[in-house]
Amino acid sequence: MTDLDLLKQALEPDKRLVEEPMHTSPQWRGRVFGVDVMDVTQPDGRTGRRELVRHNGGCGVVAVRDDGRMCLVRQWRVALGRMTVEIPAGRIERGEDAADAAARELVEETGLVSTKPLEQVATSYGSPGFTDECTRIFYADQLEQGPARPDDDEFVGVLWADPAAVVQASLDGLVVDAKTIIGAYVATSRQRPC
Amino acid sequence: MTDLDLLKQALEPDKRLVEEPMHTSPQWRGRVFGVDVMDVTQPDGRTGRRELVRHNGGCGVVAVRDDGRMCLVRQWRVALGRMTVEIPAGRIERGEDAADAAARELVEETGLVSTKPLEQVATSYGSPGFTDECTRIFYADQLEQGPARPDDDEFVGVLWADPAAVVQASLDGLVVDAKTIIGAYVATSRQRPC
Repeated sequence: MTDLDLLKQALEPDKRLVEEPMHTSPQWRGRVFGVDVMDVTQPDGRTGRRELVRHNGGCGVVAVRDDGRMCLVRQWRVALGRMTVEIPAGRIERGEDAADAAARELVEETGLVSTKPLEQVATSYGSPGFTDECTRIFYADQLEQGPARPDDDEFVGVLWADPAAVVQASLDGLVVDAKTIIGAYVATSRQRPC
Repeated sequence: MTDLDLLKQALEPDKRLVEEPMHTSPQWRGRVFGVDVMDVTQPDGRTGRRELVRHNGGCGVVAVRDDGRMCLVRQWRVALGRMTVEIPAGRIERGEDAADAAARELVEETGLVSTKPLEQVATSYGSPGFTDECTRIFYADQLEQGPARPDDDEFVGVLWADPAAVVQASLDGLVVDAKTIIGAYVATSRQRPC
């Protein structure tokens, strides 16, 4: 059995692990996410209570220039009370295709247009213990620069960095956004296939 | 200026980007997280409303055996309604040191004990747009096997896979947990320094 087969087998539902939903109670609804509490039956028959954040998900783009540098945008993150540098990204609107949303966010935040279809390189759940929020990460290395058209709510600054430096900055705790760390490793592995 | 200096400079607060908190209104409190709504003043002077999930954070361990394989645990994730495979991980208790929590979760989920201090390889915010939930990711490659002592709420199955296969499985959309994707890339880059 290959390792990939082993992983596929491990992802099949297993009654020794599955929790069965019994009752879901909505707790709070906002514009961006909602909160539910779900009562579940655990595999041993006992009852559990799970707190869940429901979110429509997001998308991001690893945009790599001809010189190998990747695009980052400076963000002020209210949730963290600090600046971050992140790959261009945003929320997926209800009903919107993930790749379309990624291309839209890319042009809105940076003015960059991919001249090839975006290639998905990861589906990333940041906190699967409590939320279904999923970030789809795309890769683009055929880019054309157009004008930036920031959203009313977005105030961003673009910079370009060597993916290996972004990886090093994640090891140093400077780059802390999950999708950006993943994107830097993806870009690095493409530049230097081992 | 090196790329690392560029990234450090980009992380300094910039008044063209910073949003100032005005008022925070608690919305909901659970055992695992809480929800706040924060009114902010945007850089252009307008008012914004930010929905935030407050969480104490988590930790995970990239545990690599002498044969180069990394440890994964099968999880049923109620939030996703599916199985996942993830690096050993869990929540950090209030007041608990992140490395201590990671060592505790490692032994609880797998029985593995690191004979060297855990090395932090990433600080990962999974969804910085709406939550301060942070996962600290550690690396351990000096391991001893003891007995597993699962938490009452945890029902896990351990498997070992080649990090390169886990990376491939993330590209294929099979491995979807952010900390596990990051961990697989970290382990791969250590095995095959380019």
